Amino acid sequence: MHYPKLMTMSGYRDRVQRLLKAASANVGDRIKVEGAGRTYEGVLMPRTELGDPNHLVLKLQSGYNLGVKIGTSTKIKLLEKGKPPKLSVPKLELKPDPSKPNVTIIGTGGTIASRVDYRTGAVFPAFTPEEIYSAVPELAEIANIKVVEACNVFSEHMTPELWVKVGKAIVKELNSAASGVVIAHGTDTLGYTAAALSFMLKGLHRPVVLVGSQRSSDRPSSDSAMNLIGAVTVAGTSDIAEVCVVMHGSMDDEFCLIHRGTKVRKCHTSRRDTFMSINDIPIGMVRGRELRLFRGDYKHAKPKGRVTVDEKFEPKVALLKVTPGVPSSIIDSVLKAGNKGIVLEGTGLGHVPEPLFPGIKRAVAKGVPVIMTSQCLWGRIDMKVYSTGRDLLQLGVIPGEDMLPEVAWVKLMWVLRHAKNLKEVSKLMQCNLSGEITPRTRPDVFLKPVFTLTP
Amino acid sequence: MHYPKLMTMSGYRDRVQRLLKAASANVGDRIKVEGAGRTYEGVLMPRTELGDPNHLVLKLQSGYNLGVKIGTSTKIKLLEKGKPPKLSVPKLELKPDPSKPNVTIIGTGGTIASRVDYRTGAVFPAFTPEEIYSAVPELAEIANIKVVEACNVFSEHMTPELWVKVGKAIVKELNSAASGVVIAHGTDTLGYTAAALSFMLKGLHRPVVLVGSQRSSDRPSSDSAMNLIGAVTVAGTSDIAEVCVVMHGSMDDEFCLIHRGTKVRKCHTSRRDTFMSINDIPIGMVRGRELRLFRGDYKHAKPKGRVTVDEKFEPKVALLKVTPGVPSSIIDSVLKAGNKGIVLEGTGLGHVPEPLFPGIKRAVAKGVPVIMTSQCLWGRIDMKVYSTGRDLLQLGVIPGEDMLPEVAWVKLMWVLRHAKNLKEVSKLMQCNLSGEITPRTRPDVFLKPVFTLTP
Repeated sequence: MHYPKLMTMSGYRDRVQRLLKAASANVGDRIKVEGAGRTYEGVLMPRTELGDPNHLVLKLQSGYNLGVKIGTSTKIKLLEKGKPPKLSVPKLELKPDPSKPNVTIIGTGGTIASRVDYRTGAVFPAFTPEEIYSAVPELAEIANIKVVEACNVFSEHMTPELWVKVGKAIVKELNSAASGVVIAHGTDTLGYTAAALSFMLKGLHRPVVLVGSQRSSDRPSSDSAMNLIGAVTVAGTSDIAEVCVVMHGSMDDEFCLIHRGTKVRKCHTSRRDTFMSINDIPIGMVRGRELRLFRGDYKHAKPKGRVTVDEKFEPKVALLKVTPGVPSSIIDSVLKAGNKGIVLEGTGLGHVPEPLFPGIKRAVAKGVPVIMTSQCLWGRIDMKVYSTGRDLLQLGVIPGEDMLPEVAWVKLMWVLRHAKNLKEVSKLMQCNLSGEITPRTRPDVFLKPVFTLTP
Repeated sequence: MHYPKLMTMSGYRDRVQRLLKAASANVGDRIKVEGAGRTYEGVLMPRTELGDPNHLVLKLQSGYNLGVKIGTSTKIKLLEKGKPPKLSVPKLELKPDPSKPNVTIIGTGGTIASRVDYRTGAVFPAFTPEEIYSAVPELAEIANIKVVEACNVFSEHMTPELWVKVGKAIVKELNSAASGVVIAHGTDTLGYTAAALSFMLKGLHRPVVLVGSQRSSDRPSSDSAMNLIGAVTVAGTSDIAEVCVVMHGSMDDEFCLIHRGTKVRKCHTSRRDTFMSINDIPIGMVRGRELRLFRGDYKHAKPKGRVTVDEKFEPKVALLKVTPGVPSSIIDSVLKAGNKGIVLEGTGLGHVPEPLFPGIKRAVAKGVPVIMTSQCLWGRIDMKVYSTGRDLLQLGVIPGEDMLPEVAWVKLMWVLRHAKNLKEVSKLMQCNLSGEITPRTRPDVFLKPVFTLTP
C-alpha cells in the first residue's frame, strides 16, 4: 500500500488542525463549518501538504469538493463519524490465467485509477492489481492485469519529457509479456499524449489504449469503470495495433468509442462523451465487452514484434492562433523566442491577415517551417481557392491538410528532429505518418447539434 | 457601375498579356494552357493587378479557380469565345413598396453580394439594388433593399478598426429608415465581427444580421441566395433586436439557422452548415421565408429607438492557446509586447501548466487581466473542481464561464476600454453583457457525429 499520506490528517496543520482536533473530526467524518455568515456541510477530505494551510476540503452532497477558508471566527462541528476507511481490500486469487491476455495498465496520475478523485485527495487510489480488481471486478474476467506507474501528474502538467517516459514504459511492457497496454491519463491533455505516442512508437504490433475519466469514481455518474473495461477489452482482445483512445461515446453508459490517437480531441469541459474523432470516423466501439469495428483500414496486430521509442521531439515549436488585427510583430517575437517551427491556426481554408506575410517570409527564409491548420477544426486546408491562400503557399507555408492544429503541432515537434532540411520537413508534414492525415474526408464526418426543440 | 477593373484584362501584363493577345483570348473565353508537361482547360478569369504577373487564373470545370504559372514554353490556345459579360441587368421597377420593410445590405467584401466569387476576380459583383434583385429576385418580395458598402476586404483581413466602420454604417441605417440591416461578410472571421458588433451597438431596437457564403455564387452548390433570403427575412420581418448570424443549417438547401452573434463559430473549412451555436441553442430558423423561433428570451424589437456605436476597443489583447510544456516565458513575452489583457485558451475546465503560474502572477500584479477559457470550446469553465483551477483563481485569473475563447477575446478588448480597474474588468467579464454567457447550459447543447455506419 503506498497511500498512507492520503489516508491521514497530515494535510491539515496549525489552526485548522487544532480546530478539527477540538471537534474530534477526522478525515471521512461529516462536519459542519460555520463562519463569515456561511455554513457548509460535507465530508472532511484528506489533502496534501502543498495546499494553503488556512483551508479545509469538504466533499459536498453534490459530489464536488470545496475548499473552505477557515477564518478566526470559524466554528467546526462534528455531525457524524465516518465509517473508518477500508484500508485493506479482500485478497483475491490472482494467479495469472494463461487463457487470458496480459494487459498492463500504466498510470500517469489521472483519475481513472482511483476509486475516488485522485486529484482532490483520493481516499482509495486503486493502484495495486488487487485494488483495481476490487474497484472494477469485471477486469479479471477480461485479462490478467499488471499495474505500472510511469509518472504522477495532473494531465495539464504533462510535458514532452513525460511523453517519452510513458513511451518507454509502454515499450518495456509490449516487448515482454503484455498483449496490450492501457494508459490511464487525465483527460485535459490526453489527446496531445495520444498524438505524441502515435508518432513516437515504432513497430507497434499490439494495441496501446489511452483512457481517462471525466467524473471521479466516488460520484454516482462516474465513467471510470466503463471506460476502463472498454480500454482493457480493446488492449487485450482487439487486433488494433495503433495508439487509440477509448472513452464514453454518449451521455449514457451505453458504449465507448475507439478513436484513432491522431484524430481525437477533447471537445467538452465536463461531459463524459467529450472525446470526438475529428474529420474521420472512429475505428470502432465497445459495448460491454463486445467490440464492433467500423472499418478495417487500421494497422492489424501481429503475434510478435519489437516496439521501439523514437523519442526525439523538438520542444521549441509555437502554436499560434490567428485573430483579426493580430500584430505583424508576432511572428518575429516567436522567432526571437527561439522557436524552430510554427503551426498557424489560421481562419477558414487556411488564411491569415496580410500584415503577417512579411514575418512569415522571414521565418521561412531562416529555415523555420510554417504549417497552416484551421481554427475551424473540422474540414481540410485548401490554400488554392483564394488569393490569400495562394500568396501564403508562395511564401512557403506548408498546408496541414485535415490535421487538427494540436496534432500538427505535436507532429512538427517530432518531424523537426527527423528531417534534414526544410524540404524534408514539408514532405513529412504533408505525408500521412500515423493516421493523422485522412487522404479523403468522408462527407458525413461533421457534427450536428443534439438539442431537441419543444414545440 | 463601379467594377470596370474586374471586367477587363487589366490584371494581365507583360508576357502573359502578350500570349493571351496572340491567342485572341479574353476574360470569359474558354482556353487551353499547355506547358511543362501539363495541360489545363478552363475559363480565363479576370484578376487584380496585385498578383504575380507570371500567372493567369482559370476557372476549372470543378468550379474552383486555379492559378497557372506561365513559363517560357507555355502555349495558350483559344477553345471557345465566352459570351460577352452582361454588363447591364434588366432595369426593374424599384419604387419602394410602403407595405414592405426597408432592409439595408451593408457590404464588407464577402462573396455573398456577388454573382460570382468576388475574391477571385468576380465578373458580376451584384451590388446595386437592381443587380441584387436580378441575382436573387425573391428579395424584392420580402423588402425594399438599399445597398451600402462599408469596406471591401477579404474577411481574414478584417481589423478592429473595420469593425467600427461597419458599426457606424449600421447605426446610420438603423437611425434613418431601415427596419433591419444585413451585413454581407466573408465567413472566415464573421464570428469575430458578430461578437464585436454585439458589444459595440448600444440601444439596438432592430435586427442586425450577418450573412456569408461558403461557395461562390457561380457554382451550382452555392449557398448565397438562400442565406441572403434568410438574412433579409430575419432583418425585415423578425423582432430579434440582436446581432445574429444567418447561415445554412444543414448540408441541403433546407433551412438557415439564426445564431446569436456572441455564441456562434465557424466550425468547418468548407461545409455550408459550418456555423454552429456553441453552448446554447440557436434563436431560431428560417425555412423559405417562414421564421420559426426556438426561444423567446431574446431582445425584442421596438418600433422606435436610437442606436449608438460604443466603439472603444483596446487592440492590444493576446489570445494564448496553451499546450503541454508551453515555455514559462510566454506570459512575459506577451506582457513585453505591450498587451493590456490576456485570454488563455486553457485545457479542460480551465487549467494551464504550473510553470505559467509565476508569469500569470506578474501579469495580474501589473494590472493586466488574465481570462480563462477552454480549448474544448464546448462546456463551461469551472476552476473550483481541481487544485490547478483553485490555484489559478487565487492568482487572480478570471473564469470566462461558457464563453468561446474568440468571444472572450473580443469582449476583453471592449471591456478594457470601459472599466476603470482590474476589479471592474473582472466584474464585467463575468457579467452577461450581450448574450455571450449562458447562465445555465442546457444539457443537450453538445454535438453528435453525423456519420452513418454501413453494417
